[in-house]
Amino acid sequence: MSATFDSLWESLLPIGREPSTGGYRRYAWNSADLTCREWFTDAAAAAGLDVVADRNHNLWGWWLPEGWTGEPRDAFVTGSHLDSVPDGGAFDGPLGVVSALAAVHRLRAAGTRPARPVAVVVFADEEGARFGLACVGSRLATGALEPDRARALCDGEGVTLAAAQTRVGLDPDSLGRDDQTLARVGVFVELHVEQGRGLVELDSPVALASTIWPHGRWRFTFTGEANHAGTTRLVDRADPMLGFARTALAARAEAQRAGALATFGRVLVDPGATNAVPARVRAWLDARAADQPTLAALVAAIGVAAAGGDGSVPDRTVLELTEESVTAAVAFSGPARARLAEALRPSFGAVPTLATGAGHDAGILAERVPTAMIFVRNPTGVSHSPAEAAEPADCHAGVDALAAAMSDWVSEPAVGR
Amino acid sequence: MSATFDSLWESLLPIGREPSTGGYRRYAWNSADLTCREWFTDAAAAAGLDVVADRNHNLWGWWLPEGWTGEPRDAFVTGSHLDSVPDGGAFDGPLGVVSALAAVHRLRAAGTRPARPVAVVVFADEEGARFGLACVGSRLATGALEPDRARALCDGEGVTLAAAQTRVGLDPDSLGRDDQTLARVGVFVELHVEQGRGLVELDSPVALASTIWPHGRWRFTFTGEANHAGTTRLVDRADPMLGFARTALAARAEAQRAGALATFGRVLVDPGATNAVPARVRAWLDARAADQPTLAALVAAIGVAAAGGDGSVPDRTVLELTEESVTAAVAFSGPARARLAEALRPSFGAVPTLATGAGHDAGILAERVPTAMIFVRNPTGVSHSPAEAAEPADCHAGVDALAAAMSDWVSEPAVGR
Repeated sequence: MSATFDSLWESLLPIGREPSTGGYRRYAWNSADLTCREWFTDAAAAAGLDVVADRNHNLWGWWLPEGWTGEPRDAFVTGSHLDSVPDGGAFDGPLGVVSALAAVHRLRAAGTRPARPVAVVVFADEEGARFGLACVGSRLATGALEPDRARALCDGEGVTLAAAQTRVGLDPDSLGRDDQTLARVGVFVELHVEQGRGLVELDSPVALASTIWPHGRWRFTFTGEANHAGTTRLVDRADPMLGFARTALAARAEAQRAGALATFGRVLVDPGATNAVPARVRAWLDARAADQPTLAALVAAIGVAAAGGDGSVPDRTVLELTEESVTAAVAFSGPARARLAEALRPSFGAVPTLATGAGHDAGILAERVPTAMIFVRNPTGVSHSPAEAAEPADCHAGVDALAAAMSDWVSEPAVGR
Repeated sequence: MSATFDSLWESLLPIGREPSTGGYRRYAWNSADLTCREWFTDAAAAAGLDVVADRNHNLWGWWLPEGWTGEPRDAFVTGSHLDSVPDGGAFDGPLGVVSALAAVHRLRAAGTRPARPVAVVVFADEEGARFGLACVGSRLATGALEPDRARALCDGEGVTLAAAQTRVGLDPDSLGRDDQTLARVGVFVELHVEQGRGLVELDSPVALASTIWPHGRWRFTFTGEANHAGTTRLVDRADPMLGFARTALAARAEAQRAGALATFGRVLVDPGATNAVPARVRAWLDARAADQPTLAALVAAIGVAAAGGDGSVPDRTVLELTEESVTAAVAFSGPARARLAEALRPSFGAVPTLATGAGHDAGILAERVPTAMIFVRNPTGVSHSPAEAAEPADCHAGVDALAAAMSDWVSEPAVGR
C-alpha cells in the first residue's frame, strides 16, 4: 500500500519549492501555502473525507461511521501542518499529513468500517515563519492565543495577520477559542519526522514522544546611533553590533554550560548599510531546556551578558529584551500514549520513546485533549533545511504505525453509542 | 544672498524623506533618486545652466563664457551627489550641490562675466547603497570601474544595475570611461559636510581636505548548515553566526589596536528563521586606516580571527573572504588646493586642513584632474544618520567659500584663449 503514500508525496513535493535552494517557502497565507491547502482539500476528497475549515482556518477532513448523525465526537484525529520555515525541508509537517491520508486509504482498502469518527487535520501557521509566533492555528483553537494578539501579528513587510487573511479571502474576525471543534477529538496522534538522530542511535524506524522541552523566543533589541563608518572615531560610536556579537557568543556558552539549546537564527540590522555604523540590531533568541527552571536561568544569564555582564550597558547602546512566546513542558504520559504503544506492539514490538526540543501542534493540543506523537527516523538528524530526509521504508513504517493506531481506535464504538 | 541657498535647500528637503525615521532613502535609480535628478535639472535651469547628462548618467549644468564656441575646457567644476545611504541625513551630498547652485546665483547677481566655463555636477550612485559599490558614476568616468562589472552589479532583490537603468529609461550600454568629459575640467572643487567633529575642535566653519584615508569593503561569507534550533545538539551544529560574532568583536579590537576604523554595518542571515540554525551569514566589513600598509594589516588580522585565529575554521563552518572594493589613499596636495587656499584667504584667513576617512567622488577624480575639497562644520559629527546636521550660518559660509573660489578661477581667461 506504499504506492498511495508515494503518489500523494510526489504530488505535494513541487509546491512552494524554491529552485535556487531546494528548500520550501510555504509561509502562512502566501501563495504556496494556499496551494498546499488546495492540494489537501483535493487529496482528502479523493480519500473520501469531507473537508471543513474551523473558525481558525485549520482544515479537517472527516470520515464518519455509517449512519452517524449529529456532531462527530470521540474521533481519532491525525495530521500535522503544511507550512515551512524559510527554505525548510519537505518532511517537517507534510510527512504527518501525507501519512494520515495514506492511513485512511489503508483502512478503506482493508474494508474497515469505523465505529468512531476519523479526521485528518492540517493546522494553519505552525512554523511561525511569517508572523514570528509558532502554532498559531492550534494556539487559537485551545485559547492559548488571544485572537486580538493573533490578528495584530505583523510580518517583515508590516502586513498584519488579519490583513494577510483578508487578502486571501479568509475572515480574521472568526478567530478564537474553539471548544466545539476540540470536543470532537477523542485522541490526537501527530506523526512527525524526527528532527535529531535519536532513532538512528536507537536503530528503530519509529518512536513515541515522551516529552517536549519547554521552549520560547525572546527578541533582543540593541539600539545605538547610526553614524558614518569612515569618519566616526571608535570612542564616539554607539555600535549595537558589538553587544549583539557578545550576546551570540554568550548564548552558546551558557547553553553549553546548562546542557540546553540557544540559537540566534534571525538578525535584522538597521539601516543595514556597509558604510554606516548600525542604529539598531534586532536578534531573536530561540532557547530550549529539559525543564522550566533551567530554561529561565539560561535566558536570564544570556540577558545579563547582553546587558554588559555586570548590568551596565556596553558601548552606550540600549538593550530591550522582550519575551515573544514561551511554551511550557509537555509530557505525553497519559493513557493515549499507552494505548498507542499497545496498538503498535503487534507490528513493532516495544516501540522506544524519545524527548524532543521541538514544538508541535500536538504539544499545544495536549493541554486540552488526549494526545500522542509518533516520530519517524531521520537518517542525518538534519531538519529545517533542504537536506532534511527520511528513507521511504521508514515513511512506510510510519504509515503502518498510524494505520494500526487508527484501526485500533475505530474498532470500538464511540462512548455512549 | 543666503536666501537663495535657503530656498533651494527647502525645495530639495522633502524628496525621498521617510516619515517613520526622518532619514533619506534616495538610492541609485529609485524614484526618490530620479525626483532628485529632476529637481536638479529644474534648479540648474533656473540658475541659467544648460544641463547635459554624460555617458555615465552624471548630470552637468554648464555656464559658458559669452561667445564661447566648441567644447568647454579649463572649467571650474563643483558639485557632489544627491543619493543617500539607507536612512541617511540631508547634508551628505546635497549640501555640495545646493551650495554650488547658490554660488552660481551669487556670481550672476554680482554681474560676474566668467572668462572660463563653470559647471555644477551631480555624480550618480555615490553611496553605493543599492548596488554595494560606492562612487559608481565617477569611477566609470575615470575608468576605475569597468562598465561590464558595473552593469552586472546586483541589488538586494537581484536587479542588476543595467536592468535598473533600463527600467527608468536610461541606456546602460553607454557606460564607460569618459575622457571627453573629464578633458573639460580645469579644477573640481567638491564641497561636503564634514562627517566628524574636526571643525568643531578647530573652531572653524570650513576646512580644506588634506587626504582621504585608503578604505575598502570586504564581504565575509560564513557557511554552515541550516538545522532545527530545537533538536540539533550543540556539538552537531555548524552555526555560522558564531564565527561572525567572533569576527565582529575582533574587528573592533584590531581597529582599536591599529588606530584605524572597522565596521560591520550590513549582515544578512539565511534562512533567517528564529527556529533554525543559520545556513549562512554574510557580513560586510568597512575598514579604513591612515595608510595602505596599516589597512592591509588590519584586514588581514580580522581575516585570521574570522578563520578561527590559528587558520582552522571554527564550528565546522567555511569562510569565504572577498574584497569588493579598495580605494587607495588620496592626497589633495597639489596646486589646486594651494590656489583654493589663496582664494579663501581674504574672507577666511588661513583655512585649516583636515584628513578624512570618508570616500568621495573628489577622491576618485583626483587621479585624473586637479581636485580639492571644502568641508563644512558638522556640530555633532554625526553623519549617515537622520541626525546629521550643519548650522545655517556654516552652510552660508560654505557658499561664500565656493563663490570665492569660483570667482577667482573664472577671472582668468582659459589657457590659450
